[in-house]
Amino acid sequence: MIKEIQNHRSIRRFSDKPIEQGLLDEVLLAATRASTVGTMQLYSIIVTTDDVLRNRLCACHFNQPASKAPTIVTFCADVNRFHKWCQANNADPDYENFVWYSNAAIDTLLASQNFVLQAQALGLGICYLGTTLYNADKIIEILAIPKGVVPITTVAVGYPDEEVGLTYRLPLEAVVHNQKYCDYSNAAISRLYQEIDNSDLTKKLVEVNGVANLAQVFTQKRYTSKDNNEFSEKYLQVLKHQGFIK
Amino acid sequence: MIKEIQNHRSIRRFSDKPIEQGLLDEVLLAATRASTVGTMQLYSIIVTTDDVLRNRLCACHFNQPASKAPTIVTFCADVNRFHKWCQANNADPDYENFVWYSNAAIDTLLASQNFVLQAQALGLGICYLGTTLYNADKIIEILAIPKGVVPITTVAVGYPDEEVGLTYRLPLEAVVHNQKYCDYSNAAISRLYQEIDNSDLTKKLVEVNGVANLAQVFTQKRYTSKDNNEFSEKYLQVLKHQGFIK
Repeated sequence: MIKEIQNHRSIRRFSDKPIEQGLLDEVLLAATRASTVGTMQLYSIIVTTDDVLRNRLCACHFNQPASKAPTIVTFCADVNRFHKWCQANNADPDYENFVWYSNAAIDTLLASQNFVLQAQALGLGICYLGTTLYNADKIIEILAIPKGVVPITTVAVGYPDEEVGLTYRLPLEAVVHNQKYCDYSNAAISRLYQEIDNSDLTKKLVEVNGVANLAQVFTQKRYTSKDNNEFSEKYLQVLKHQGFIK
Repeated sequence: MIKEIQNHRSIRRFSDKPIEQGLLDEVLLAATRASTVGTMQLYSIIVTTDDVLRNRLCACHFNQPASKAPTIVTFCADVNRFHKWCQANNADPDYENFVWYSNAAIDTLLASQNFVLQAQALGLGICYLGTTLYNADKIIEILAIPKGVVPITTVAVGYPDEEVGLTYRLPLEAVVHNQKYCDYSNAAISRLYQEIDNSDLTKKLVEVNGVANLAQVFTQKRYTSKDNNEFSEKYLQVLKHQGFIK
């Protein structure tokens, strides 16, 4: 298996050592080699190292440890540049809509995963910050992101200051379907999740959170119904505000 | 640069040689090593080799040459399995909403990009089929995809039967922003797109399509306003139907 895929793990503590510009450029160049709709590269990558801006971004990411990395890279779906290019060519663009938000989000994430693997190949550590979606409105303000552009994910990157093990994955048969989707029986769910449900890490998480099992850690503590619905409404509003939903 | 990233290209003609199961499993295993929200792997990967099903999928992808690959892999955002696991554990899940569609779509695309790079590492060729979004409703029907699951992208995969060159990318400064988003002046657009606007490939495309420039190939021929709006409406309806938008 490709070494960087096999050894991939999230790093949440970084040394203060900044990333050399030449090395970062190599990582960014790798990002741009990913597949893209019509070769249009419908994304923008914002690299933030400035202390004041980083501190403000940190708050958007709930000050989670990884967000204190020396370099914060915000990956945005972007049809703004595409529109401007069309307009400069007497073409009449109409890409501020949901299907082009989706096309651009795909371009963006293929690029971010190339970025991540290439960063690891050059000795850097990374962590994806999924919190990007939750406070996209504030990130837009901090990074002066215009209409036609929306943050999709963020990669915290720097030289690692911790060693961590690989995290657990479900058995392949839990996520792979042969020919068609094969829906899950209760027996299948119980079998496929048996190992994670009974792992030592799970037991610790369950105890710390004072609930009955790992699923309840998710539903009652980490990702509650109230939060899910509030963040959904908020992100849909962001997509409207940026022009992607009418 | 990681060899598979540097040499990445889309393959649209494949030999009939089927992919060995052990090799495909290695590629699928690589997909599952990507980062995932809360280690929940919010995706399903449907591997279709059956002739009848593949022919029906081909039509969803407008019978484009790449869609005739011997193996069609449909990558879906999936909270259905997560819900069933929660329910089996007396946890009360509420993840059929837009932010969890978005979280799951991110998980799905990071996995698909790992899949693609690992496939290349093992001698396979791939092509992303962006058409997945346009006819998601029909794909859902063909592959028996339940509520809480939605196709995000498709990877056509097989042994290559053509040799193709690398495709053009914009200069790094076109997509990378320092500290904050720096919006594009007309002069910047003209400079950044100069090379692609004047390439031989562009000249050929412009001539074949009978338009004035490359931007007009996009706006007038490939991705028209009418199509964009119809597909946007259709995909939003799919998300409603699958339970991700109220």
